[in-house]
Amino acid sequence: MPPVTRSLEQEFEVVLQRLIANEHSLALLRWDSYMYGSTKGAQMRANLMGTLAEDTYRHLTSESVKQVVEQLDPNDLPTGMLSSFTYIQKQARRLEKIPYEWYTKYEKHAAKAMQMWTEARKANDFSVFRPFFDRLVALQMDYADYAGFGDDRYGAILDLREDGLTSEQVDAWFQQLQEVVLPLLSHVKQSNKQPKTGFLFEEIEIEEQMDVAKSLFELTNFDFESGRIDSSIHPFFVPLSPEDVRVGISAPSAKEFKKMMKETLYSCGQSLFAQTSNHLLQAEVPASMQQAYGLLFSSFISKSKSFFLQCKEHLPDAIHRYSIDEIHAGMNAVDFTIVKNDSSELMVPLHLQIGYELEKAIMNGEIATRDLPHVWADKAGDYLSLATPHDLGGILQEYHFATADFGPKPLN
Amino acid sequence: MPPVTRSLEQEFEVVLQRLIANEHSLALLRWDSYMYGSTKGAQMRANLMGTLAEDTYRHLTSESVKQVVEQLDPNDLPTGMLSSFTYIQKQARRLEKIPYEWYTKYEKHAAKAMQMWTEARKANDFSVFRPFFDRLVALQMDYADYAGFGDDRYGAILDLREDGLTSEQVDAWFQQLQEVVLPLLSHVKQSNKQPKTGFLFEEIEIEEQMDVAKSLFELTNFDFESGRIDSSIHPFFVPLSPEDVRVGISAPSAKEFKKMMKETLYSCGQSLFAQTSNHLLQAEVPASMQQAYGLLFSSFISKSKSFFLQCKEHLPDAIHRYSIDEIHAGMNAVDFTIVKNDSSELMVPLHLQIGYELEKAIMNGEIATRDLPHVWADKAGDYLSLATPHDLGGILQEYHFATADFGPKPLN
Repeated sequence: MPPVTRSLEQEFEVVLQRLIANEHSLALLRWDSYMYGSTKGAQMRANLMGTLAEDTYRHLTSESVKQVVEQLDPNDLPTGMLSSFTYIQKQARRLEKIPYEWYTKYEKHAAKAMQMWTEARKANDFSVFRPFFDRLVALQMDYADYAGFGDDRYGAILDLREDGLTSEQVDAWFQQLQEVVLPLLSHVKQSNKQPKTGFLFEEIEIEEQMDVAKSLFELTNFDFESGRIDSSIHPFFVPLSPEDVRVGISAPSAKEFKKMMKETLYSCGQSLFAQTSNHLLQAEVPASMQQAYGLLFSSFISKSKSFFLQCKEHLPDAIHRYSIDEIHAGMNAVDFTIVKNDSSELMVPLHLQIGYELEKAIMNGEIATRDLPHVWADKAGDYLSLATPHDLGGILQEYHFATADFGPKPLN
Repeated sequence: MPPVTRSLEQEFEVVLQRLIANEHSLALLRWDSYMYGSTKGAQMRANLMGTLAEDTYRHLTSESVKQVVEQLDPNDLPTGMLSSFTYIQKQARRLEKIPYEWYTKYEKHAAKAMQMWTEARKANDFSVFRPFFDRLVALQMDYADYAGFGDDRYGAILDLREDGLTSEQVDAWFQQLQEVVLPLLSHVKQSNKQPKTGFLFEEIEIEEQMDVAKSLFELTNFDFESGRIDSSIHPFFVPLSPEDVRVGISAPSAKEFKKMMKETLYSCGQSLFAQTSNHLLQAEVPASMQQAYGLLFSSFISKSKSFFLQCKEHLPDAIHRYSIDEIHAGMNAVDFTIVKNDSSELMVPLHLQIGYELEKAIMNGEIATRDLPHVWADKAGDYLSLATPHDLGGILQEYHFATADFGPKPLN
């Protein structure tokens, strides 16, 4: 008794449920790997994630999905499903052009490259990673060619991240940003007003850090019945669904107050967005939207005086003895460091511009990967007015190079 | 570029990977629900589990699987995949007869019935649950009819649990067991030798219990790099794969020593089997095999003198002051209680016989569900020589009735 009597709308629901199940399973596997997965099961979990990704590909390119996408009138769907339909339609048409073999090959190489990236970071030497990067770049070029963006290979990557985003747009934005940021940066550097910041870098005990983080999440209305926060080695954010949003606070590497505030508030923002957004598939959510919420919290709320007045009693003991004015000024002071994750938001756009320009040049074949370390350093000199001490402080900061996962990235 | 060029063997691998992914995702979801899942996400997780189960059905009944199953020569497969092939072949042929609608209906009713079972346990009243049970029984009868076992509806259920198992076989086994167990039971009751057992029922603190459990797992060679044990409200056992076996020890409801030893060693046995078995799909493993390992540990190893000599130093303080001989005798003493989970293995087969006889009678329409409480009590009088005080001590012990999930069950 094969299920042939279902209507197109019912068929669409089946397609959607399958994608939701894959997406949710993948997210849960990721969270589990960070938190509780067994040591010896790592390879098995990686294979499984590959299987789920491949299955999503196979499903979206199947005959039944093609039929639904081409024949279903979206007006027949309940309103809540419309944006999912648009998303699936776009994905199906996009993936139809990409051969299955590309997917499996890319995944295999990316897994290996990720390991070698870690080795390169350990050795503080980009060249350890380079041969693997080359292969991934070639695969990304293939992807762009399949996607059919003609000469504008990087455009294919941008469009993948944000519908319709083009290099011209991004070029113009960075141009505008530079015009504002560079003069401001040099003004700040020359200013006589340099707030005290040393106290913000005191180390905080893990337990205290988790207490503070929980208080901040409570203050910003995180719903603990629809999610949880855990102490983890690396910070992470895994929204399984609006009812189950999981956050990892990187407590074990006991952090300074400033870093902790920034990271925690960024997670608060992302989490609140995830708990209140109404998408059926997490993948429908534009990356920039989630980032915008994170940034709103980490760069504005976490630096506003009124927020400090509200959360003062929850702050770590070491900070308590400073006045709100001192904390406020310190948090808003600009840090001049070559490390993107430690630098102030004034520097971050310039860091992003470096990454963006390199990605584009790589994808368009305008730069040899051998030259990347010194091109990075040159740009850092021009934009940040800082010297690059070594690969770890330079090119090996571009974490997404590890899998050649190009395109706009979270601006933590 | 659709993936049409794959060979039948490659196609089979894809089928297998899909099933493994579904199975693993389901198991991880189950573990996560027990341990870390959010409160508000419970409904969403239940839906998702339904989707995964339905997807497995849809996949196994698809045209592509049918083609693989009918045309592939199993001799072309690597040896490691042979048993998976046989399993999938059998499942595919079995499911082909069952309409998709049956699956979704059964799942929906089972979820509701499970809630009502809990209500009935709270109220200590089977009749609260009865109307929901009736509906599930009707669905199970439908299943048996689809499966095509003619008048022997219960045979369809038995075959589902263990390939080829028939009512005649089980009837004969129980008959044999009764002939041995009933005289032994009456002999034990009349014996003058009644070991001290009171000390085995002392409550043990949660922390101490977890320490003891961990030691026992270590002593029995559980590989902690291929699994983990957690403290949980109910005991559970979730093998994600041989490399990742998860066990819940029901510590929060601080247990007595005897119960703890039995439950913990049962889990040890199951876990070791799961960590060393070579099946690609957990579902391939016959339920009786896993149970046999659990029982070997809980009923033999946990009651042997040499085991106590080995683990003595790890036992809880309260037990320490007793001699090995006293512990050994106490653990092997027979407990006469109406509660199956607390009764000795001498009584368990009789309990199982009660459940089995009721299931069979229900499926074959020989008993009205209204009569179940007193039929249970009558049988308990005949087999166990014990009075049934109320539904909780009687019919409401048959936990698998909650979802009408009939057939041979773990004999913890």
